[in-house]
Order: sequence, then C-alpha cells, then structure tokens
Amino acid sequence: MVMSVDKAFRVLHAFDYSRPSMSLTQVAATVGMDKSAAQRFTYTLEKLGYLRKDPVTKRFELTVRTLDLAHHYLRSNAMLERAMPYLMHLSKTTEETINLTVMDGPEIVFVSRFMSRHVLNTDVIVGTRMPAYCTAPGIAILSRLATADAAALIDRMDLKPYTPHTTWQREDLLAKIAKSSVRGYATAFEEFYHGDLSVAAAITGPGGVPVGALNIAVSRARFTPEEMEERFAPLVVAAAGSVSQR
Amino acid sequence: MVMSVDKAFRVLHAFDYSRPSMSLTQVAATVGMDKSAAQRFTYTLEKLGYLRKDPVTKRFELTVRTLDLAHHYLRSNAMLERAMPYLMHLSKTTEETINLTVMDGPEIVFVSRFMSRHVLNTDVIVGTRMPAYCTAPGIAILSRLATADAAALIDRMDLKPYTPHTTWQREDLLAKIAKSSVRGYATAFEEFYHGDLSVAAAITGPGGVPVGALNIAVSRARFTPEEMEERFAPLVVAAAGSVSQR
Repeated sequence: MVMSVDKAFRVLHAFDYSRPSMSLTQVAATVGMDKSAAQRFTYTLEKLGYLRKDPVTKRFELTVRTLDLAHHYLRSNAMLERAMPYLMHLSKTTEETINLTVMDGPEIVFVSRFMSRHVLNTDVIVGTRMPAYCTAPGIAILSRLATADAAALIDRMDLKPYTPHTTWQREDLLAKIAKSSVRGYATAFEEFYHGDLSVAAAITGPGGVPVGALNIAVSRARFTPEEMEERFAPLVVAAAGSVSQR
Repeated sequence: MVMSVDKAFRVLHAFDYSRPSMSLTQVAATVGMDKSAAQRFTYTLEKLGYLRKDPVTKRFELTVRTLDLAHHYLRSNAMLERAMPYLMHLSKTTEETINLTVMDGPEIVFVSRFMSRHVLNTDVIVGTRMPAYCTAPGIAILSRLATADAAALIDRMDLKPYTPHTTWQREDLLAKIAKSSVRGYATAFEEFYHGDLSVAAAITGPGGVPVGALNIAVSRARFTPEEMEERFAPLVVAAAGSVSQR
C-alpha cells in the first residue's frame, strides 16, 4: 500500500459539512499528521486542483474538481446508462421522485435522482448514504441475496430505530426481507425520514445478482401507504425488470 | 509535490466512458507507468475502496466510493445550500429544467440539476463540463468579471463552432458579454446542443465576484427563443439575485 495516497485521501475526506474550510493547523489536527506533512499534502492537492487555498484567509476548501471522479464513475456505469430512460419515463409519468441506488456494505448510496416538484427533502443528493436496512432499496437488494448472505450483512449493521416506524430488530428484518423476496419489491414507510413513503425493486445483473435498486418516493401527506404501494409497486417492478440483465 | 498522489489520481482518472474497466496492463499503458507501479497503485486504490477488481476477469473499475468526495464538496458548498430552495421553487413553478453551475477555468461544471419531465438530454449530470463560451451560465459569469479579465479568459479558450448558432469569434463573444452585463442575464440558443434554449444569471459573492450561475433550459420544440427569454429571464434574474450575497 502506498501510504501517501491513503494520507492524501484522508486530507480530502476531512472536509465535510461541519468543516467546509480549514486552516493548515486544523487539517493537521483533524487528519492526525504533523504540520509539515499536512503542508506537503495540502500543497500537492492544491497543485492537482482538488483543494483551493483562499489567498486572504489561507484556509483550504474542496474545489469543483472533486466532482470529476464522480462524473467518471457515473458515466462509466453501465447500469446507470441502461436505467436512465426508465428513470426518465417514470419521472414523467408519475411526476414523483425517482431514485437509483446501489448498496455499499451496510449502506445504500444514491447514484441518480429525479426530484419531483412535490419533494420535501432536498438534503438527499447524489452520493448521499443511508443505512440500507431502513430503506426500501436496501431491503429490495437484500431480498435478492441468498438468505444466509443477507443475514450475514444484517449482522454487520448497526441496527437502531430512526423513527417509531423503523423495522430494526434482526428477526423482523429477516421476515421483511423474506416477504419482499416473495413479492418482488420492498416498501419503507417512514422508516428513516418522517413523511417519506418509498417502494423499491432490485435491479439484477447476470445470474440474478442484485446490482442496485430503483425506487419511487412520495410524501405521506399526499398518499396513504396502501395507496402508494398499490399504485407504484407495479411500476418499479416493471422498470427494474426492464433494466435488469438476464 | 508528493508524486505518488499525482500518480494515484492519474490511475483513477484513466477510467471513463470509453474505458469503464481495465486490466492491469491497460492501466499501465493508459497512465504511462510500468506494470509493477500500476500494480502498487491499483492495489492501494482497491484497499482504499476506490477501485474494485473483478475476481473473475481481473479487470478494475471505479466504485461508488468515488461519489464520496463529490458529496463532501456538494454538502460543504455554501452557495449550493443557499441556492437549493430557489432551485426547488423554480423547478416547481416553471416545471422546466433548472441548473446550478460554477466556472472552472474555460469550462462550466454542473453542480445541481433539477430535470423537467420535458427534458430531452439525460447525458448532462452532476459533474458534466461544457465550454463556458457556448453556454448561458458561462456568459453570465463572464459578464460579471472586469472586461479585461473576461477577455483574458476568452483568449485562453479553444474557440470553435459547435452548432451553426454558436457565438465563437472573439469580438462577437466580447459583444455578447457586454450586452449580458447590461441586461443582467445571458442567453444561449442552440449554441452547444441542438434544440436547447437556455437563459442564465450569475450568482455573486461579497464584492460582486461571480461564484456561479443559475439557469433555466427548455426545448426549442416548445418555445421560440423570444418567448423563452421573455418568460424566464426575469425568473432567473430574481432567483440569482436572492442567492447572491451583498
């Protein structure tokens, strides 16, 4: 392992919502390196264009160049390319929020998002992560794994209730996954965000391996969970089926 | 400069639309390093979670973890946070495509995008770059710079016509920038994509420095340029003004 590469990424990842900009001293303290090392890495990352140093305040911040890698990933993602026309079609016909997600360890990650004009929550953007077990896409993906593999993943998750509606106990989750496997889709009604109703179906690759999920999210203020499921479950199942590879 | 950091990023950036996955030999050839160096960097990037090695084909590809840096940038971007409610509002009231962009050298980069159900082009996503001079956001931003600074930037651009409508000659561009400066907004009618009508206003930070632009894009099939400009220019001017800092 090339240790300096690890250190460079630790410097970049130190910048976030709570620390949008940092002085050299703060970078060193946050990453846990001495000031001269922090200087070498911030200098390198500035030269490469990923960090910007404010000429007045001398504070560092991430630059828009950090979007390039994400763009390369998104543009080289064959599933996203296949899914785009279906996401677009669902967005047009339902006028609701449509998402494409993938699972990464215990989390789902949003890779594409068509927001509805009814959407309440603009905090969820490309790259947002959520605990898989309290989301419809996460359960949909788990339901396409072998039961033992899904159980093993559940056992590595930090299970807790985010709302009074969160399904978070092991046995309840395994039952929910089994039910979703039979139905071919998963639901999450206010399990992570209040007011959020979501229905998802897994997208599978060759051999039936789940590679992502497609979901529709609506507001509890406009639909009951029953209405939502009845209206949108067939749509996500059909679209995810079309994107899946046999 | 820490050279191994530069090399690691060159390996990551070698993956793109035309090369979504690569063998070790291909990585080495594309980046221009010997195979043992390529092995050290791909191994490191795999351990850090940015590359995945297919156990069967032994080919490498980018992982969803490449979205994390973009997410950190987007979540720590104060302009985006201020702009979000206005983007949302414009999206709801116009039902057209709304974008937030920043300028990076000779290009604009899309940082947020609310797609309309009328949208034709799903190739434009977060992180997409376009030559600034043939876009409304680019001209809007240039029109908020000192004339000499805008001219200096124009001189560094690779000017050429992308469509029969592209404004691409130096004097024409300077005239367009001057006109946009007076009006407070810029237009681009089919200057990069056929059928694309766009109107943009710059978002400024303290001291009037342009930090980005907000634009509305519609299809030529549904509006004439005159209708488009009359209807949407006042909306982008008002929204960009609200997001700007005094």
